[in-house]
Amino acid sequence: MSKVPVGVSARHIHLTQEHVELLFGQGAALTSMKPLSQPGQFAANETVEVIGPKGSFPKVRILGPVRNLTQLEVSRTDAFSLGIHPPLRESGNIEGSAGITIKGPAGEVTIEEGVIVAARHIHFHTSDAERLGIADKQRLSVRLSGERGIILENVIARVSEAFALDLHIDTDEANAAGAKTGDEAEIIG
Amino acid sequence: MSKVPVGVSARHIHLTQEHVELLFGQGAALTSMKPLSQPGQFAANETVEVIGPKGSFPKVRILGPVRNLTQLEVSRTDAFSLGIHPPLRESGNIEGSAGITIKGPAGEVTIEEGVIVAARHIHFHTSDAERLGIADKQRLSVRLSGERGIILENVIARVSEAFALDLHIDTDEANAAGAKTGDEAEIIG
Repeated sequence: MSKVPVGVSARHIHLTQEHVELLFGQGAALTSMKPLSQPGQFAANETVEVIGPKGSFPKVRILGPVRNLTQLEVSRTDAFSLGIHPPLRESGNIEGSAGITIKGPAGEVTIEEGVIVAARHIHFHTSDAERLGIADKQRLSVRLSGERGIILENVIARVSEAFALDLHIDTDEANAAGAKTGDEAEIIG
Repeated sequence: MSKVPVGVSARHIHLTQEHVELLFGQGAALTSMKPLSQPGQFAANETVEVIGPKGSFPKVRILGPVRNLTQLEVSRTDAFSLGIHPPLRESGNIEGSAGITIKGPAGEVTIEEGVIVAARHIHFHTSDAERLGIADKQRLSVRLSGERGIILENVIARVSEAFALDLHIDTDEANAAGAKTGDEAEIIG
């Protein structure tokens, strides 16, 4: 049995440098508030408002560094509040996904696609994957134990030299299981 | 393998007759908007506001008929929004649970206990339970299939002549699984 630390992702956004400057002003750059579990990634001091047809969230954390695509990741519960219908996707796969309006202190931008519900996944460093006999893209079953325990099926393995071992689930999944960041999950198949 | 229909419970409240009259006026009675899956139960036309230390929900549906205890059932996501810490409980077991303020058109009342996150459960009519070999209070594992499939562990069996076969989960559990009312779940152990 293989233990994996749990990381719960609240709604957050990744921005292109172009969008950072549109939202925060010409020449603006993200600044790190704290490092995340994945090497080089950080939660920025900066937040934006996201505005859907039915509701909005005033302070959505930006995760850095900037990317080559702007991507908002929300839970299904968040999606109902916003009034949008984002698909379940792996990060980076945003073609035909949902749109949203993003507002910062210096401007706003409406994206036609880029909003997804992130498919749960485990980041494996290559050495972890070798040790556990797990291949990139493999689908795994993972148990979150407890009074409200659940087994997550179709958890996607992502393997890279750049990754640290971590199970990423969203707030719906965490709340359904009564789980929180720092808990331990178990790969059972 | 045994199939069970899925019923997703959004946040809702059960009231005592005393509280109905405090909130809606002396002599007020709940009126049925639509029947629920369990025989004799109904969603009322009436709603109340519930107010926690951090947030509120303006329109929480009352389920009837009245009960001998007032009980608000919320998801864990709702609980974070309200700023309260309700325990995971079976319906009716509210001792030491969380409090809340409830507001109606004719008045408001603050309860010291009565707010819970409902433990997921399956209602079995006695004949279903006999057919499937399931005992009251038994813990079951239930699969919700799909791209975001999960297996719910510790699902409590509740058996009564008054029940109709139905798996009750909350919105966090439904959203985590991409499930909705009318889907089919499977008892796998």
